[in-house]
Amino acid sequence: MPLDHSLIGVDGPSHERTWTAKDTMLYALGVGAGTSELEFATEKGQRVLPTFAVLAAQAPGRRLGDFDPAMLVHAEQAFELHRELPPAGSVRTSSKVTGIYDKGSGALVTTATTAVDLATGEPLVTSRSAVFIRGEGGFGGERGPRDTWAPPDRAPDHKVTYPTLPEQALIYRLSGDYNPLHSDPEFAARAGFDRPILHGLCTYGVTGRALLHAVAGSDPGRFRAMSGRFTSPVFPGESLTVSVWVDGAQVLFRTAKDDGTVVLDRGRATILPP
Amino acid sequence: MPLDHSLIGVDGPSHERTWTAKDTMLYALGVGAGTSELEFATEKGQRVLPTFAVLAAQAPGRRLGDFDPAMLVHAEQAFELHRELPPAGSVRTSSKVTGIYDKGSGALVTTATTAVDLATGEPLVTSRSAVFIRGEGGFGGERGPRDTWAPPDRAPDHKVTYPTLPEQALIYRLSGDYNPLHSDPEFAARAGFDRPILHGLCTYGVTGRALLHAVAGSDPGRFRAMSGRFTSPVFPGESLTVSVWVDGAQVLFRTAKDDGTVVLDRGRATILPP
Repeated sequence: MPLDHSLIGVDGPSHERTWTAKDTMLYALGVGAGTSELEFATEKGQRVLPTFAVLAAQAPGRRLGDFDPAMLVHAEQAFELHRELPPAGSVRTSSKVTGIYDKGSGALVTTATTAVDLATGEPLVTSRSAVFIRGEGGFGGERGPRDTWAPPDRAPDHKVTYPTLPEQALIYRLSGDYNPLHSDPEFAARAGFDRPILHGLCTYGVTGRALLHAVAGSDPGRFRAMSGRFTSPVFPGESLTVSVWVDGAQVLFRTAKDDGTVVLDRGRATILPP
Repeated sequence: MPLDHSLIGVDGPSHERTWTAKDTMLYALGVGAGTSELEFATEKGQRVLPTFAVLAAQAPGRRLGDFDPAMLVHAEQAFELHRELPPAGSVRTSSKVTGIYDKGSGALVTTATTAVDLATGEPLVTSRSAVFIRGEGGFGGERGPRDTWAPPDRAPDHKVTYPTLPEQALIYRLSGDYNPLHSDPEFAARAGFDRPILHGLCTYGVTGRALLHAVAGSDPGRFRAMSGRFTSPVFPGESLTVSVWVDGAQVLFRTAKDDGTVVLDRGRATILPP
């Protein structure tokens, strides 16, 4: 069997990861923060966009088995922030595979990563992600937990539309994801796209900005958690509309393109009162 | 006398400077290269915009004397490339003040910097800049050399218009010039501007792209030298039109805003035949 099920539940090696104020500014510009969000895009009174948590908690991937990497797509991303991220910081990260589920047409592999502040030893971020690997299903395993996400039966409490730049993926990739699917037209064509697509985590970051400003009063200290499922590609230059339903600290959201195509679905966030 | 004339002609201390492929990509995005200039904005077959020469040859400034730094503006910038810049590199730079001229209302201080490839010892860049310091003239010194720049009596051979992004200064500054004049509305207001202005060297870089693509066939290897004088501020989001006159390898140019205001004047470039 090509996927290595023995990885499940076993702690991977730990790694140190450091970021600078320049890294968090570049990230902010990469997910579309601009002149109206100077607190995130410049060092003056700098604060950090909550979705940077996913990058702060990045750990080098482990070899999941023997399969074509082109068959792997980022399917879901969640994070929990234990405290507000500092503009510059150092963490020790450690990740483990938490499940390998059989979805028939492929396998869903879930991973959890924790990032602990290197100086204080306090937990900073817990991040969970899922990748879908086409062709690796049908091994007779469990399908995994079902998610009963559904928005309330009312119009969204907030609808926020943000543009993305034609250059958005070129800026975003300098935060560390140099996959040519997001920059190289030839590579993108071989993967079946008319042109390079935006990073899923860029769409995720744009969505996080919408939640931050619409629900959290632009205060990253109130933004504790976010999760969502990637459902369709975005091309740089397309606008994204985030529909948001708020019930106390529990927030549901969904992000769509102008044509209505949902690109980030089943969104949940936890945003504390002021 | 507040400016230190004893600096003239004395070699300053040498410094090492290193840049990475990410630095040159970020610079390219900072001066507006995007999806139609992937050779400069991404690492695939990466080449370097010639105007990065000015940053490659940067040396820490020396204390010129006792004056209000807010009175200093970047007045002129020139560079000569001895060979094409590598995407990543290390140089040893050394600079000296070459003149302090009395312009009446202020002093013009000219500096020359050389950057030598650290590995081979070969010269890579010679950079010359001039700063104008208001209120420091009237010391009875020479006015300095006169420049008889004039375009030929014909319409420009090329006119190239490039937009700049509203976020252009926020991206450009991550290449190392964090002067809040280019990012902080309050600081810009104190300096007398309605909003933050674009870095002069960003305008210079946008202009260099126009020359590179219109005259040098997009080949940085043909681009040997460039100089110009900053004459008016640019706001991020404004378009820049570069008018170019070509006579063999000698190129004259001038950059203006949509309203005709010239922002980079008395431009000269040396661009070799293919």
